[in-house]
Amino acid sequence: MGLIAMEDVDENEAEIAEVEIEVETKILVPPFNFAMVDEGIYRSGFPTEENFDFLETLNLRSVVYMCPEPYPEENFKFLKAHGIKLFQFGIDGSKDPLVKIPKDAITGALKILLDVRNQPVLIHCKRGKHRTGTLVGCFRKLRYWCLSSIFEEYHRHTAGKSRMSDQRFIETFDVSTVRDCVLGIMYRYHGVGRKSKRLVYESDSDN
Amino acid sequence: MGLIAMEDVDENEAEIAEVEIEVETKILVPPFNFAMVDEGIYRSGFPTEENFDFLETLNLRSVVYMCPEPYPEENFKFLKAHGIKLFQFGIDGSKDPLVKIPKDAITGALKILLDVRNQPVLIHCKRGKHRTGTLVGCFRKLRYWCLSSIFEEYHRHTAGKSRMSDQRFIETFDVSTVRDCVLGIMYRYHGVGRKSKRLVYESDSDN
Repeated sequence: MGLIAMEDVDENEAEIAEVEIEVETKILVPPFNFAMVDEGIYRSGFPTEENFDFLETLNLRSVVYMCPEPYPEENFKFLKAHGIKLFQFGIDGSKDPLVKIPKDAITGALKILLDVRNQPVLIHCKRGKHRTGTLVGCFRKLRYWCLSSIFEEYHRHTAGKSRMSDQRFIETFDVSTVRDCVLGIMYRYHGVGRKSKRLVYESDSDN
Repeated sequence: MGLIAMEDVDENEAEIAEVEIEVETKILVPPFNFAMVDEGIYRSGFPTEENFDFLETLNLRSVVYMCPEPYPEENFKFLKAHGIKLFQFGIDGSKDPLVKIPKDAITGALKILLDVRNQPVLIHCKRGKHRTGTLVGCFRKLRYWCLSSIFEEYHRHTAGKSRMSDQRFIETFDVSTVRDCVLGIMYRYHGVGRKSKRLVYESDSDN
């Protein structure tokens, strides 16, 4: 058993395939702490130039960047060259538990994630641990994951540097504030009735 | 900005949507060490009955089970009820570095993973650490990931219990032994020419 051949591959097409395979054989370097969160949603630490070839393979439509610092020129150029939109939600990276995570930033970022027009999307902060982990945790809560599984995944990406403040934020985060988006993602995953529906947006319906 | 409404949702359909949302609101418990590896490929520790509701949401077509022990009756019933195929590749779970990982088992499991007819597929062993981690590492090698990124992901799932023998296996694993399958997955991801192609199998072409 095993994949062995393609149907109807004429000579010309076979040539194209050969070129594509050659391109593909370079070694790819995913960004630090990279993982697939869900279909069309990825997470990682800060990507650098050595990760660009890998990022190309994801066919990203957008990046959700969770730090307040300006985006580096090099990364910005990469996004521009590939038509990738940048959404920035600046959250302070301090580990001082008195510095609160702004709810608006998480809610705003979730709305971008859930918007199918922005997918595939890469979420990243600096190390892909706390800010990214908190956002992914809230996303899992929206998808009805139990808290212990959410925290298990959070811990996996913090490599021993978990923060109580992040976990408390996830636990107390009120998912009803993004209920409209939940509804949107449900329609996307389950469809309504027999035919799948086109999602419409506030901006569309204003027209 | 945000998803707010559906087009053409008549009253009847809205009612169906409401029912679906109600079903979806129960809390889901993913198996221990669960993660998405790639589109249509998941990994985890051994699923128990409390994980079945979650597993249903993945719409699995198959399970790749990496332990030599017989599959528990309860899990087998769940698979049967949902038409999920079970592929078993029994690898001994011993941490004795002299107990070698059988190459045939990894190669066989990879062929199952890469076969699009088996996806979505869940790989699992007992804890989702070593046997599953080794298989996923070899899969990443096939997808041209650099070794340091492969090992980073491997470590993330072993929670401090990484094994040199697994990493050495991944490093020395000869990907050319599954080259046919690599070719298959490339066709799937990149297509050939303008139209996407149906993959054919040895068994199909024999007919």
